[in-house]
Order: sequence, then C-alpha cells, then structure tokens
Amino acid sequence: MATFVLQALGCDVSAINTVNFSNHTAYKQFKGRRTPAEEIQEIYNGLKEADLNHFDVMLSGYAASKHAVETIGGIGRDQRLKSSTRPGSFFWILDPVMGDQGRLYVSEDIVPAYRTLIRDADLILPNSFEASQLAEIEVTDMASLVAAITKIHKQYQVPHIIVTSLNLSPRTGRRFSNADKIAVVGSSCCSDYSPRLFSVTVPSLPIFFSGTGDMFASLMLVRLREAVTSINADMLTKKSWQSPDDVPATSLPLAKATEKVLASMQTILEKTVAARDADLADETSTNGESEEDARRMHLRRTRASEVRVVECVQDLQHPDMQQPGVSKAEMVQIDA
Amino acid sequence: MATFVLQALGCDVSAINTVNFSNHTAYKQFKGRRTPAEEIQEIYNGLKEADLNHFDVMLSGYAASKHAVETIGGIGRDQRLKSSTRPGSFFWILDPVMGDQGRLYVSEDIVPAYRTLIRDADLILPNSFEASQLAEIEVTDMASLVAAITKIHKQYQVPHIIVTSLNLSPRTGRRFSNADKIAVVGSSCCSDYSPRLFSVTVPSLPIFFSGTGDMFASLMLVRLREAVTSINADMLTKKSWQSPDDVPATSLPLAKATEKVLASMQTILEKTVAARDADLADETSTNGESEEDARRMHLRRTRASEVRVVECVQDLQHPDMQQPGVSKAEMVQIDA
Repeated sequence: MATFVLQALGCDVSAINTVNFSNHTAYKQFKGRRTPAEEIQEIYNGLKEADLNHFDVMLSGYAASKHAVETIGGIGRDQRLKSSTRPGSFFWILDPVMGDQGRLYVSEDIVPAYRTLIRDADLILPNSFEASQLAEIEVTDMASLVAAITKIHKQYQVPHIIVTSLNLSPRTGRRFSNADKIAVVGSSCCSDYSPRLFSVTVPSLPIFFSGTGDMFASLMLVRLREAVTSINADMLTKKSWQSPDDVPATSLPLAKATEKVLASMQTILEKTVAARDADLADETSTNGESEEDARRMHLRRTRASEVRVVECVQDLQHPDMQQPGVSKAEMVQIDA
Repeated sequence: MATFVLQALGCDVSAINTVNFSNHTAYKQFKGRRTPAEEIQEIYNGLKEADLNHFDVMLSGYAASKHAVETIGGIGRDQRLKSSTRPGSFFWILDPVMGDQGRLYVSEDIVPAYRTLIRDADLILPNSFEASQLAEIEVTDMASLVAAITKIHKQYQVPHIIVTSLNLSPRTGRRFSNADKIAVVGSSCCSDYSPRLFSVTVPSLPIFFSGTGDMFASLMLVRLREAVTSINADMLTKKSWQSPDDVPATSLPLAKATEKVLASMQTILEKTVAARDADLADETSTNGESEEDARRMHLRRTRASEVRVVECVQDLQHPDMQQPGVSKAEMVQIDA
C-alpha cells in the first residue's frame, strides 16, 4: 500500500519490506514470513555500500519483533546523523504499530523499544491505544488524550503527533454520541514543547478496511512536505520542519496536510464501500452455516473490502477538498 | 519496476518477489537474498487458500534456480488448469531470463527447465541469446532468428514470441551498419504454427539501463490486452488470444502493442539519458584513478542511469505515438 501510494504521488521509493506475506492478516490466514531483523539491516547496509542511502524522508511502519524495531531505529538514527549538518534535510515519520482497541498485537517488549525510538522521529502516528502505551496514560476522553500528546511532546521531544481513528468528539471531549464520525487529533509543538492541537472529523464507514494506516502515513508524507513548501519553503531547512510559535494550530502545515489526506481517503473508502456492496450483492443469509462456510464467507467479505487504491489513483493525486463530511481543521479547546 | 508499471496502468497486482535485494545487480554489489523456491510456492499456496488466486494474466521473470523455475512453472500450470474451461481467461507472459550477449547469468540447468516451461506460456520475451538457447539455433542474422522463432512456434507450440534488443536490421537481415538502431522482432503464429513476423525499430541509446526488460514485459501485458480488446473483444475468449489466420503480421494485436510499448519506453529512456547527463555534468576525467575511485564512479554512473519511471508515469500512461525514430510495425521478409 505505502509504496504504491508514494510512487503514484511521484516519490522514488527504496522499500525494505518488513514482511513478505501472501495476503494481509485480516484474512485471518496467510503464508510467508516476517523479514528477520538481520536481513533488514543487511539490505540497508547494501544501500549504503552502493551509495544509495540518500533519503529525504523515511517512513517506518510495522516491525515484527523488538530486534526489528531496534534495527529500524538504528537506520533512522544513521540517516539523522548523516544529515545532522543540514536541518530538515531528513524527516522521519514513524507509525508505532503495536495494537488497537485495547489489545497489543505485537510482543510486549516492543512497547518500551518504541518509547526509546520515538525520540528520534519527527512525526509519529499512533492510534489512541498506541498513544496510551507510549505516554503511559490511558486515553478515555479528550482531556486524557491531550495529556498523552502533551507528555509525548515534552518527555520524548517528538515535534509532530497525529492520533488517528479516534471515536472521541473534539467538541464535547467524550465519545461520539452516535458512532457516525471519527476524528484525528494532531499537534505540532511550540518551541517550549507545549502542544498546538487541531482536529479533523470525518464520517465513519461501516466496515473494516486493511491498509488505511499505511495509506494515511504515505499520503501524509507527501502532503506535509507539500504544505510546508507552499507555506514557506525556508521551513524545509528548519529542524523537523517546525513552524514558528505564532502559527495557530489550524494553520499548521500538519493541519493543512491532514485535511488533504483525509479528503483523499474518504473518497477512496466510500468508493470501496460501494464496490464491496456490489461484489456482495448476491450474498445470501446463512443461518446455521458450517465452520467452513463461515471461513469462506469471511474470506469473501475481506476480499470485497480491499481498498480500491489502484483504481482510485486519481483520488490520491487530486483530493476533492469539498468532500462532504470531512471537516476543516478545528482548534481543540481543552476545558481542564 | 514491473509492479509499479502495472499498478500505474490500473492493474491490481499480487507480486511474489523472486529476489529481495538492496539494489539491482548492475551496481555490481548488492545485499539481500533470492527467495527460495519453497517460499515462492508457500506464498502462492497462501493466495490459493485465501481464495485470492483469480488472475487474468501472469507475468513471470527472473528465477534464481532450476527449482525456482520449476516452481513458477507449476504455478502457471495450476492457473492454466483452473481456467481450462474458459479459453483466454488466463494468459501467461514469460520472460525466460537466462543471459545476454553470448553469456548465461543463471546456472546451466535452468536452460532445459525453460525449454520445458515455455510450452505452457502464451507469450515469451527472450532476447536473441535466450532465443538461441531455447531453440538450440545460434542467432547471427535475420535468417537464423526466423529459424529460431519458427522452431519455438512449432516445437514448443508457443503462440506469441517477441525477441527483444536485436542489433539486426530487419531490412538487410544483417547487423546494423552503424549501431544507431535496435529492433524487436515478434510473431503470432497461424493455426499451423507458421510464423507471422513483424519488426519495430527504435533509435539506440548510448547507455545501459537496468529494468528495461521488466518495463517492456509489464507494458506489453497491458497494451496487448488493450489491443486485443479494441480489435475484437471476442478474441479474449480464444485460446491464447490468437488472431484468425487472415490477419497480416503488421495488424496483429502483438504488433500494435509493441508499437505502443516502444513509444512509451523511448520517451522515458531519452528523458533518463537527459537527466543522467545533467547529474553527471560535473564529472571530471579520472586518468590513473584508483580501484576505489573506479568503484565510486561506477556506482555514481549506475545511479544516474536509473530509469526515471516514477517521474515519467505520464509517458507510461499516454505514449507519444509520434515519437521520432520509433518505426511502425513492418513485415519481416525472409529471403531464404
């Protein structure tokens, strides 16, 4: 997903695959293997030795083990070091893939490994469960979310954070009363590491999609760089592309990029829902189905829900900024 | 290369990577590994078990070992069998990657493995050395090339063949007198397996590019299906999309597709040469350079020659059919 999205938006990509599976895991069955940490390191060494390690941006996602997380951390730090005399010339977007909905799907020792790692990242993209894990603050409402983001900014000096897939209303601070919306909350910190918080809400869709995290991260990479450049190209030479302290939250490049990313995604996911419904139109009710029938049905539904990203490449490239339901970035007010 | 080209042209791709290297081998150094045959098979089994093995077309390229070649052959035959009641619903393009310029770069036992395999393919894309190996006829001029293609059609019943990167003039039958052109010669056989030969010539470019074989094969996949559909959609239900015997060589879908593929490629490769020259503009003459200097220079030149495929996605999608130097398909006349 991420490689195609980046290439479709004009980026030259050196992909190091951290898994090599026949299909994504939402099918509940797959073959193939996780790339051993040694092999991730070896491929990076190969790039270095062939003088092919000149990256503007690094995007890191799922890693299967503590050792793999540490290896990716070492690669990020190596790139950071290489660019240390040229602030902004290397930017690292880190998606700390650990779990969701209160449940880890990686081994527990990965959590402290990520806590160490995010210090070196420029932008992290946790969901609310992952933000809880990183900050060691349980996120249950907007106040605890803000506390978690504030702690991540201050303690780990992460300049940019976006918390994805929230079922919290940025207005009331509590769960959405009906589950028809989801929100993201982002922040680029000021020079004193205090947060500058904004939110964007989108209509919630009634099915589970696989790959939306990778889609969000890769679109964000392109749109953030673009927003920074269009606001002030000089910012690309600032450490972590940080905005001056007087820029309000809703005018941050991160906020502008988020609006654009979610406009693309909402269009593509709505088209995916329509295509899925067409694929499944002949589905019959299956009361008393056997275990094998249930497995087949699950495979079929999962296949029908595959995000139509290749078909919708135009929507990646040219987001409809009037996409109904996708809010403009709003300032998050914290009533402590 | 192939995955991106296919996705950019709107194809949903299930890619099974037969290698996982840090960089392509023209750098003369790389890290990573070849995918073991067992793992290729395992990933295909995973696709099958998840009911994700519904392919219209298969494109197979480099395989590192006899065992890997045989495994890919088994996958092709499995797909063929699955589609046996619906002729044309599965089409297999096989690039028998074995060597070039008189030299094998795979182990010798791969050659007989490919001779067995190509019987099951619909279209094969050898270069002239590979055609020699498959046909056991040394290709030195147009007459021997035609003999090789004729033998491959008759003996192995391969319906479509394109021989790439020829330095033979289809007009004189001998080597181009000055090396300013290269040619491809293709043929879709008649029902008696006799060849129907056409050629397309393009200007030769002065540098070596890596990945052009994959680019040719993946563009060919899309353009051939498109040409077949636009000429007569009913042909998609014929075995191997074979044209009626009265279709002349230059009107074959294969010929039309070749024109379009080479128009895209010529534009992209010329843009690559221009970009490379700009990258290397400050290159200084290096007489008496050390071995390490020579290695660095080779890496730099190879990097500068990387095909600008992501930047040139428009040229993949919308070939300039007036691209100067790319000939229309011409009938190949054999003066025996």
